[in-house]
Amino acid sequence: MNPIEEKFARLATDHAPGQEVRQAELDWGRLLRGDKLPGTPVDFSHGDVDESAFAPTPGSLDEFVKGFERGGEQAYTEYRGSAEIRERVAEHLAEFTGAPLSGANELIITPGTQGALFLAIASTVATGDKVAIVRPDYFANRKLVQFMGGEVVPIRMDYLGRSTGAGIDLDELEAAFKSGVKTFLFSNPNNPAGVVYARDEIESIAALANLYGATVVVDQLYSRLLYSDVRYSHLRASAIDADNVITIMGPSKTESLSGFRLGVAFGAARLIDRMEKLQAIVSLRAPGYCQAVLRTWFAEPSGWMADRIAKHQAIRDDLMKVLLAVEGLEARAPEAGSYLFPRLPALSVGLLDFVRILRHQAGVTVTPGTEFSPLCTDSVRLNFSQNHEAAVQAIERTAELVNRYRVR
Amino acid sequence: MNPIEEKFARLATDHAPGQEVRQAELDWGRLLRGDKLPGTPVDFSHGDVDESAFAPTPGSLDEFVKGFERGGEQAYTEYRGSAEIRERVAEHLAEFTGAPLSGANELIITPGTQGALFLAIASTVATGDKVAIVRPDYFANRKLVQFMGGEVVPIRMDYLGRSTGAGIDLDELEAAFKSGVKTFLFSNPNNPAGVVYARDEIESIAALANLYGATVVVDQLYSRLLYSDVRYSHLRASAIDADNVITIMGPSKTESLSGFRLGVAFGAARLIDRMEKLQAIVSLRAPGYCQAVLRTWFAEPSGWMADRIAKHQAIRDDLMKVLLAVEGLEARAPEAGSYLFPRLPALSVGLLDFVRILRHQAGVTVTPGTEFSPLCTDSVRLNFSQNHEAAVQAIERTAELVNRYRVR
Repeated sequence: MNPIEEKFARLATDHAPGQEVRQAELDWGRLLRGDKLPGTPVDFSHGDVDESAFAPTPGSLDEFVKGFERGGEQAYTEYRGSAEIRERVAEHLAEFTGAPLSGANELIITPGTQGALFLAIASTVATGDKVAIVRPDYFANRKLVQFMGGEVVPIRMDYLGRSTGAGIDLDELEAAFKSGVKTFLFSNPNNPAGVVYARDEIESIAALANLYGATVVVDQLYSRLLYSDVRYSHLRASAIDADNVITIMGPSKTESLSGFRLGVAFGAARLIDRMEKLQAIVSLRAPGYCQAVLRTWFAEPSGWMADRIAKHQAIRDDLMKVLLAVEGLEARAPEAGSYLFPRLPALSVGLLDFVRILRHQAGVTVTPGTEFSPLCTDSVRLNFSQNHEAAVQAIERTAELVNRYRVR
Repeated sequence: MNPIEEKFARLATDHAPGQEVRQAELDWGRLLRGDKLPGTPVDFSHGDVDESAFAPTPGSLDEFVKGFERGGEQAYTEYRGSAEIRERVAEHLAEFTGAPLSGANELIITPGTQGALFLAIASTVATGDKVAIVRPDYFANRKLVQFMGGEVVPIRMDYLGRSTGAGIDLDELEAAFKSGVKTFLFSNPNNPAGVVYARDEIESIAALANLYGATVVVDQLYSRLLYSDVRYSHLRASAIDADNVITIMGPSKTESLSGFRLGVAFGAARLIDRMEKLQAIVSLRAPGYCQAVLRTWFAEPSGWMADRIAKHQAIRDDLMKVLLAVEGLEARAPEAGSYLFPRLPALSVGLLDFVRILRHQAGVTVTPGTEFSPLCTDSVRLNFSQNHEAAVQAIERTAELVNRYRVR
């Protein structure tokens, strides 16, 4: 393979959420045991934004239409996004994260948080640079680093072995910084495990970043969807050098606005400047008319967010009951977000085959754990932002198939 | 500067179209002569999509709303875009370009044509690779190559010295291929000059690409907006090896749909595959609900496109009359698209200062020629997709200022 073929061989998306439709038919039919299980198909690879599950924020379409009617002014914003909308969003984010923020210089609107992650990594990582990445973490993180020619330095996270905190191995993180790592990228709440970093973990990350002069990119996509009794610490409000932090958020998940492709990155002005220059050649700007939908963000109708959280928490609790009844299955109840990341008992088929069988026999789509860490060969991720009843029944079918295919 | 600082220093966007608002105030006030010229401000850096100029395709907002109402199915498409919409668009593009096209495997929907250009270059150019770029051509082309670590090999185009054809220097292109260039990127119609490559130029490009096994990326963004008597040759319908061509189009310009951020790249399946893998980590997908707007593309109301072309041609003709009356100014009437790229007579102020003065004294925003070629130090680009009357008056003010600041 030549260099560019090698580069793209590393970017395989065959098992990425939502891409199952492009998998070639393989010879796993011979592995099947028993009959199909009837029931409403559920695609746990992403949230369901239909009316029967979690529909977009009320008023979001109206704001889009108003943006369209505003014409050229809304279609052709600065590359970093509409100045007025940036100001408005920055005010909300300053209050939410507990640290000041300039909409003029410290925030960029991007095509989804995926766009923000790409720009942040491409603006900080050059060929040969070492980047610390948590295992497990969002599946695109390591691909972003590899695509920019960087080297991934993995950091362990023992999320199952505790009931609070993420369980990041801070000694390993310090060793990584000592070995020359200059960028650390992580999600909080963690995707896929749904755990929230404890205050002392966040403070330790800040102290280490300061000590070693490292840049930290923190993906807080799920930080608004926190369940009862969870305390959340914003890295940017800790004692970290503000010139070295980028925070990423967006309304695609809790607010179900993914179809508009909106995200934001905010923090160090020098890095936001780079991100804008890069956005100019990558996609010009986040879709102009869609930017107008950010007027609904942090301005949802009173009680709407509390209700949305309560509904997710109720689904979480019902799914956990079903899962924990499966012998040998380990799962920690997520403290935030809508991901569950159970570790399955030993199965008589490989993980990728089990994922295919689950889809074929039970109409249940999940994402294999290996997308999030090469070590997670026995876990699957489920996004439970779904119709409540359909989700419970789908997990019951999943439990039945785990039992059907377990090692005896 | 460290490597990443150097990389971003090359990506300056200060003079890019639409970014004028971020320019620091400089000391050019002392250069001013005479008073301001009154009149409606016109921003020629991009087209005007307001009702008073060229509004989006009729029905585009309705299709967006229908897409929104379709829910999750439209929000979460494959990374390369909705299968059904790809099929529909591929049929239109096969007919339009005169060569077969598979919507399943040979087309990707991207966030604008900028997204398509980025993905195409990032999927073909590795560090150290040589890429041929026409001078002048779209300002982001060279930046894309440089960002991917490639080396730009410039190809001359003598667009002013002739009345048909683009005037590309085919000997220089062949020499470039001989020197190891494996990728050639160009726009047809040319942005900024508005000229269309003649059939023999396209056939020569195809023959050279075949001979040297090079990949050609052709940006045909403006290929629907052709004026009377212009014959357009689609590269992909020529005798070129289909496995080495990517064509890029989108509805942002002629159709005024830029606010939806939609583009497509189509051609060699192996390159489209790479582009999808990369899109997965750059922005996931073109905005889901916006993709639905592509249902209006090539399906505009009967007579609408002919009317739109006639209106642009009328503006072109009126602007050319004003420009050609300016002593020493050279301009070729564009054969397609909505860009004019006049070469100004010698001025007593530098080009960047004249551009600032023009905005300050006449309310006229244009893009300096140096964005398109380091050699175009005396040209400016105007996008004349504007309100007809306002555009003519703005060009009259521009002519007056050219006369006011000319070398005497």
